[in-house]
Amino acid sequence: MQFLDEDFLLTTKTARLLYHDHVSALPIIDYHCHLSPSLIAGDHRFANLTEAWLAGDHYKWRAMRANGVSEAYCTGGKPDAEKFARWAETVPYTLRNPLYHWTHLELQRYFGVREILNPTTASGIYDTCSGMLQTPEFSVRSILTRMKVEVVCTTDDPADTLHDHRAIAASGFGTKVYPAFRPDNALLVDNPAAFNGYMERLEGATQQSITTYGDLLMALRNRHDFFAANGCTVSDHGLEEMYADDFSVDTVNRVFDQVRLGQLPDEASRRQFKSALLHQLAEWDHEKGWVQQFHLGALRNNNTRKWRELGPDTGWDSIGDFAQGRALSRFLDRLDTNDHLARTILYNLNPADNAVMATMIGNFNDGTIPGKVQFGSAWWFLDQKDGMTQQLNTLSNMGLISRFVGMLTDSRSFLSFPRHEYFRRLVCRLFGEEVEGGELPGDIPWIAKIVSDICYYNAKQYFGFV
Amino acid sequence: MQFLDEDFLLTTKTARLLYHDHVSALPIIDYHCHLSPSLIAGDHRFANLTEAWLAGDHYKWRAMRANGVSEAYCTGGKPDAEKFARWAETVPYTLRNPLYHWTHLELQRYFGVREILNPTTASGIYDTCSGMLQTPEFSVRSILTRMKVEVVCTTDDPADTLHDHRAIAASGFGTKVYPAFRPDNALLVDNPAAFNGYMERLEGATQQSITTYGDLLMALRNRHDFFAANGCTVSDHGLEEMYADDFSVDTVNRVFDQVRLGQLPDEASRRQFKSALLHQLAEWDHEKGWVQQFHLGALRNNNTRKWRELGPDTGWDSIGDFAQGRALSRFLDRLDTNDHLARTILYNLNPADNAVMATMIGNFNDGTIPGKVQFGSAWWFLDQKDGMTQQLNTLSNMGLISRFVGMLTDSRSFLSFPRHEYFRRLVCRLFGEEVEGGELPGDIPWIAKIVSDICYYNAKQYFGFV
Amino acid sequence: MQFLDEDFLLTTKTARLLYHDHVSALPIIDYHCHLSPSLIAGDHRFANLTEAWLAGDHYKWRAMRANGVSEAYCTGGKPDAEKFARWAETVPYTLRNPLYHWTHLELQRYFGVREILNPTTASGIYDTCSGMLQTPEFSVRSILTRMKVEVVCTTDDPADTLHDHRAIAASGFGTKVYPAFRPDNALLVDNPAAFNGYMERLEGATQQSITTYGDLLMALRNRHDFFAANGCTVSDHGLEEMYADDFSVDTVNRVFDQVRLGQLPDEASRRQFKSALLHQLAEWDHEKGWVQQFHLGALRNNNTRKWRELGPDTGWDSIGDFAQGRALSRFLDRLDTNDHLARTILYNLNPADNAVMATMIGNFNDGTIPGKVQFGSAWWFLDQKDGMTQQLNTLSNMGLISRFVGMLTDSRSFLSFPRHEYFRRLVCRLFGEEVEGGELPGDIPWIAKIVSDICYYNAKQYFGFV
Repeated sequence: MQFLDEDFLLTTKTARLLYHDHVSALPIIDYHCHLSPSLIAGDHRFANLTEAWLAGDHYKWRAMRANGVSEAYCTGGKPDAEKFARWAETVPYTLRNPLYHWTHLELQRYFGVREILNPTTASGIYDTCSGMLQTPEFSVRSILTRMKVEVVCTTDDPADTLHDHRAIAASGFGTKVYPAFRPDNALLVDNPAAFNGYMERLEGATQQSITTYGDLLMALRNRHDFFAANGCTVSDHGLEEMYADDFSVDTVNRVFDQVRLGQLPDEASRRQFKSALLHQLAEWDHEKGWVQQFHLGALRNNNTRKWRELGPDTGWDSIGDFAQGRALSRFLDRLDTNDHLARTILYNLNPADNAVMATMIGNFNDGTIPGKVQFGSAWWFLDQKDGMTQQLNTLSNMGLISRFVGMLTDSRSFLSFPRHEYFRRLVCRLFGEEVEGGELPGDIPWIAKIVSDICYYNAKQYFGFV
Repeated sequence: MQFLDEDFLLTTKTARLLYHDHVSALPIIDYHCHLSPSLIAGDHRFANLTEAWLAGDHYKWRAMRANGVSEAYCTGGKPDAEKFARWAETVPYTLRNPLYHWTHLELQRYFGVREILNPTTASGIYDTCSGMLQTPEFSVRSILTRMKVEVVCTTDDPADTLHDHRAIAASGFGTKVYPAFRPDNALLVDNPAAFNGYMERLEGATQQSITTYGDLLMALRNRHDFFAANGCTVSDHGLEEMYADDFSVDTVNRVFDQVRLGQLPDEASRRQFKSALLHQLAEWDHEKGWVQQFHLGALRNNNTRKWRELGPDTGWDSIGDFAQGRALSRFLDRLDTNDHLARTILYNLNPADNAVMATMIGNFNDGTIPGKVQFGSAWWFLDQKDGMTQQLNTLSNMGLISRFVGMLTDSRSFLSFPRHEYFRRLVCRLFGEEVEGGELPGDIPWIAKIVSDICYYNAKQYFGFV
Repeated sequence: MQFLDEDFLLTTKTARLLYHDHVSALPIIDYHCHLSPSLIAGDHRFANLTEAWLAGDHYKWRAMRANGVSEAYCTGGKPDAEKFARWAETVPYTLRNPLYHWTHLELQRYFGVREILNPTTASGIYDTCSGMLQTPEFSVRSILTRMKVEVVCTTDDPADTLHDHRAIAASGFGTKVYPAFRPDNALLVDNPAAFNGYMERLEGATQQSITTYGDLLMALRNRHDFFAANGCTVSDHGLEEMYADDFSVDTVNRVFDQVRLGQLPDEASRRQFKSALLHQLAEWDHEKGWVQQFHLGALRNNNTRKWRELGPDTGWDSIGDFAQGRALSRFLDRLDTNDHLARTILYNLNPADNAVMATMIGNFNDGTIPGKVQFGSAWWFLDQKDGMTQQLNTLSNMGLISRFVGMLTDSRSFLSFPRHEYFRRLVCRLFGEEVEGGELPGDIPWIAKIVSDICYYNAKQYFGFV
């Protein structure tokens, strides 16, 4: 087979049939990503391929650094054309890394460029693509439309005004752009300065003062309602591990008071605070019928020197090896005990924990709706062929892949939508190989239905997007 | 290949030769399962396919719940035909889950039904199979005979009378049905009420009072002897993790006394109690030349609401992520130091721990007998194609697959014996692929001997069943 | 395909082309092993195949014991011919274990023997190979030359005189034989007797008394300088887990003083000592521009009875399940904060931790040199087809395989060099399959360059061997 041709990843006739005839044309529901609502509201056009590809993309920066490219060309101040040249030098060294596939898929799908990116082709590709990006056909709204993106859920702080979301909704834009409630900052009691800075922001957003834990809850509830009023139906949390310690009201109040005074309570008390607040937020999610999402397992900000220079989310995070089972069980059980467990998606970053996650969801699938608790798609470092395959296989072996809500980009980039295609090809590959190997029946209509469900319809139904 | 045809899973000519000519006809030794001795003693016949398939099968219940089927049709009081209909609706959604393979293998092997189970075929299949189940050819003894089951080891509480086992032995039934000693209840010091209830049962069985830890040991020893007198040669333990803390006689006595008074000792003391008792039991197993088995790694009873409604073992368990290495090492070493380590099988539930287990056994294989300490077959959630393949490969890479005692059903169902066939096909597939890929020599007689050993002869020799 | 023929493991035409035309003839850089410098200095010849193969090889002993061979034939005093006979009996039972491949590869590559080793062929093979071993063509220097070994880094205690290394260098031998600084013994504060014994050795080597922690640092620094003066450019550490606790000078001094008095300080204090000393050693490695290596994850000396009889490194070690992420992060970050982090290689023994390791290195690849922090090749129990494949795939997916420094034997045996061939074949296989499957472009010159880099040139450049 030729590299990245139309049958990319489709190793069997059945896979090709499933993909081309049944799923390739389905719309996209991107129910968790980090796209900028402001760029969508303003229908932004990118100045060049460096802005569209390299600004904010810590995946690419990491690869460049591992290839010996200095920071000046990653996050630094070098001219865009020079940055692109260093990226183009790095690409040939990313063979077998997902960046190699993504890069060339994106060149093909968005720009019709079928060349391989390397130092020889770099400047031609840069000029061609940059030129195209400046045309109306490549504004971010045009991109969303062309990629058949039906729904986007962004990731938003509770203090956000949602001004852009309202502007987008008012504009009648075909792609629905909903906010998602991500209250990570309200849990920052490990860092009193950051927590207090955030309280100020939240006071601004709610026009109330926050001097007790009760005030904090009232402010967050206010924003939860506000998000709901603006179309939000999902929450999200980025956590190293779940917090589900026993907690007392007194301790939680004390932690709040101490942190507000700039003091750092002991770790056990801080865990109680986080446990209490996460539980409360989950109660509200259930009350409103939202879907709650938990991204678990990252070990963040490992490089202090670089964190000081560049801040968080600049490529110094990795995979943690935390014990996840007991706390997850306790957290979900506490909610389930009163039947207050919302639809829930658990995303896992350490592949060694796949089996723990894939079986944990079964403990709380109580028969009320299909696939109520989900093992989310392979995420971040796992968002590649092997990682996705392992997640799909573990879920298949230990749960019902047929009820899986499927793929999301989790991306900051408008050029990442081919990851849905990548996922769909992999799903068709797995089913195709088993059909042709006699491990699944050759009932193509039924298999096509299941595959289409995984790639589109299950998410539509699960999230209630109509 | 056609779905589930005679060459199911046999991807190479060598695999087909190995399976069909060498292992398919071998008898079955099911050295660990949860079959009911009472049903065997009474040569039970099932009223219908729901009773045979769905009663007590938490695997199927879990799949039904994940598919949105309400509890009334799983463990509840709905009529058998309706329950079956809901199961038949669920089956098409279990594609890629082991239930899909098991279901259709069982339909073929027991009933000669080659149709796919779905809502269209459901009532025909239900009527056909239920009719057959009511005939003498489908009594549980007929089933065991037809499946060539030579030996079954059930799983029994020390307080059990073994009445049924003696009745079966006296009847001259061809399949040997032996008890296994599973003293989990004697370790229940985390739950004083349950522990004390169990002490009462044990007092009844031994006709002695149990008021000290010494009494408890005497009672258990009494039952250990009694089990041995009734053909028992294996013990089994279901544990989240191994307990091998240092312990003092005083603490162990105190824990016993407190728990008998209904008090809950601190966790460290309870761990000492468990460590001491497990060690003592293991000494007895060695003394009698038994095989001891440890099922490690389950995280049980995660759903309190359902546990209250339905009790344990109803489908609310999952895979734990406990650190297993050090305690296992200490436990086995403590016994080995005086050369009191019995033949031992470690079963692992978290696939991330496969390498730990597969190398742990090598620390205590001291050259006295081949494969003295075994890494047991893939278990529970891992009892599927990928899980079994991973266990077989890890054991191959880090130990001697040639000395492996192979498969067991661990099942409550008389319809589960095709899992031995499934295992055998997988073993032949792995060897076949390596022979044809030039990774193993094409010495078929030797490979056939090894494969046959793994599928039957090793277990026969290891357990001493003649 | 025939077993172990010239295309062994090379499943595609592209793989065969890459291997035969591009990498098979490359020299070997064995940058970490346990070869005896004394045998090289003396250009030792082995008396027979038992001495060359079975003396000191705990891999083979473990397999023999698991096969029921008694200790007398492993480490015991039985005649060499009888030991070999028991090994030859065991080999057919090692099917699917790496020993089976290694054994037959070594017979082919060193001795031209293409027979399968089993009891029938054993004595013929023994006589043939033993005869050859006694000829000058099989002296250890002849072997190193014939296997095209350019560089060997042995593993040496700081107290070593390096007499043999100097003798080898002075002899003008074509293979460069460098020492590596492995100060594990200086960390033995868990065992005061062993620690004090080692202090005596170190006092002898440095001709200074060691009565304070400061003295110890001075002595180690003295040896660090001495090793550097004798061509050393790499250090190595064998650790269960990384130690990176916060430490105070007072505690570290106190631990030293107590241990010197034969007392055992509490565990937390001992961890502070190890954390402090490891940090100091790493500072020196950076100062001198060395490469530092960490072998992490073994659970050692599990069998006390055998440890008493036979000592360490005799086959009673296994894989641990320690949490590795946070401490590794802290250790590397502490050095990086002042930009004092040397080039570093992390070797991982538990495959469940591959993703943690493969992403950890990215946290400290700061763009200064390509592949500054490396995820080392699959090690010990993982040094087999699946383990190597998993390491290569994880590194590919989460980092840059193109910058990987590749294989090392880590072996005590002069007959282990075909493991480089094994690794190279696997690398070609992985790239070949993806090229032919359309997952990589068919740009053979570029792929050949990358594969050659991984197999040879990257190590040459990374270690600065010219």
